[in-house]
Amino acid sequence: MNNETTKKEMNISLGVVHDVGRNVSPSMTVYVKDPKPRFEKYYTLKRDKVNVTRIILGSHTGTHVDAPSHFLPKDKSIDEEPLSKFIGEAVVIDLSKCKTQHNSFGITDVDLEQYSSIVNPNDILLLNTGTGKRLIRFAYLEISAARWILANKIKSVGIDTLSIEKYGSKDAPVHKLLLSHKIGIIENLNNLLKFVNKRMFLVCLPLPLRGVDGSPARAILLEMIK
Amino acid sequence: MNNETTKKEMNISLGVVHDVGRNVSPSMTVYVKDPKPRFEKYYTLKRDKVNVTRIILGSHTGTHVDAPSHFLPKDKSIDEEPLSKFIGEAVVIDLSKCKTQHNSFGITDVDLEQYSSIVNPNDILLLNTGTGKRLIRFAYLEISAARWILANKIKSVGIDTLSIEKYGSKDAPVHKLLLSHKIGIIENLNNLLKFVNKRMFLVCLPLPLRGVDGSPARAILLEMIK
Repeated sequence: MNNETTKKEMNISLGVVHDVGRNVSPSMTVYVKDPKPRFEKYYTLKRDKVNVTRIILGSHTGTHVDAPSHFLPKDKSIDEEPLSKFIGEAVVIDLSKCKTQHNSFGITDVDLEQYSSIVNPNDILLLNTGTGKRLIRFAYLEISAARWILANKIKSVGIDTLSIEKYGSKDAPVHKLLLSHKIGIIENLNNLLKFVNKRMFLVCLPLPLRGVDGSPARAILLEMIK
Repeated sequence: MNNETTKKEMNISLGVVHDVGRNVSPSMTVYVKDPKPRFEKYYTLKRDKVNVTRIILGSHTGTHVDAPSHFLPKDKSIDEEPLSKFIGEAVVIDLSKCKTQHNSFGITDVDLEQYSSIVNPNDILLLNTGTGKRLIRFAYLEISAARWILANKIKSVGIDTLSIEKYGSKDAPVHKLLLSHKIGIIENLNNLLKFVNKRMFLVCLPLPLRGVDGSPARAILLEMIK
């Protein structure tokens, strides 16, 4: 772990915008029992000379950001979250081997510690697990990994699975630990594999839905120039 | 109009993230007869140990991006739009005096031409009209202004009103001209006044809603370092 101070400036390339979010559609995978997306034609070109759609979405559908109020009573909703948590230097690490190492798919502090030389304080840590499309048996953070994230002053954590929490967990200890310490959580990212071991500039923007516990978000990576 | 080539790199400040979008809530102003936002509690902490919300939104509610398919049959939907159209150097110009100059609130090519010395090809042009909260009598682009935007190779245009088009227009000539020439359209921006005559870095990210005619979007401005 380096102890660099947080950079206040960044030189970025505008050559390519890398989309690391998932497309949202009625046929997409959502967390078990969550609302399915639905797009209803509200106006149509043929009848009304304009297309407008009524969109129905879960607050944690597709690539999304969790607000603290997802699990913590009276804590911040998504419109109250500072966007700076979801904008900045991101390092992508590969945990896809954990699924063979651990039968339970749980990512531990030991798994994360292997990458300590490339992770800096105030980084956004993006986890490629390769289990992104699984409904139930997806990789998740053990509480030891959440503690590692706190100890290493990570700003936000992103993952390519439906949740950072073990499927079926009732008490959500990982969410509660991270959210209560103001660590951002981005779930259901996509296309992280090609950025493994790279340092990129992440911009992940949730919608400012007043009083809501989270929001679908678009997430992009831009290249940084040294 | 300068003829600078498009910059491929940019040095940005991460000190402050300026939010130029509108909060989304059931009480917000939407275009006449458009669907009103609704947030339904789907799971609650008390009953289910987690908060999840079912969100109902119009595709053109709040700060949003128009896809070409909003007005053009068989043209691109919002998930097919290149994000690079909505990311880049933006110049904010003040047209709030047009509302006293023109009874009709129409912005013309002559209004825009006054700013030609600070507008470059490939810029995103952001229009502060000061009529953002009006339901009907808001400022809009005349077709001459849309032609000026094309002639000056503007990448995208953003406005602080519910629409770039005159209220009640049936044929939407401004939308059709801009969208058919692949010019991006961002509507219902907020807080542009303080950036008038400034050059900023805009990131505006719509959700990738498959096949849909537009999407609510989060929009931010970052400061550029020369």
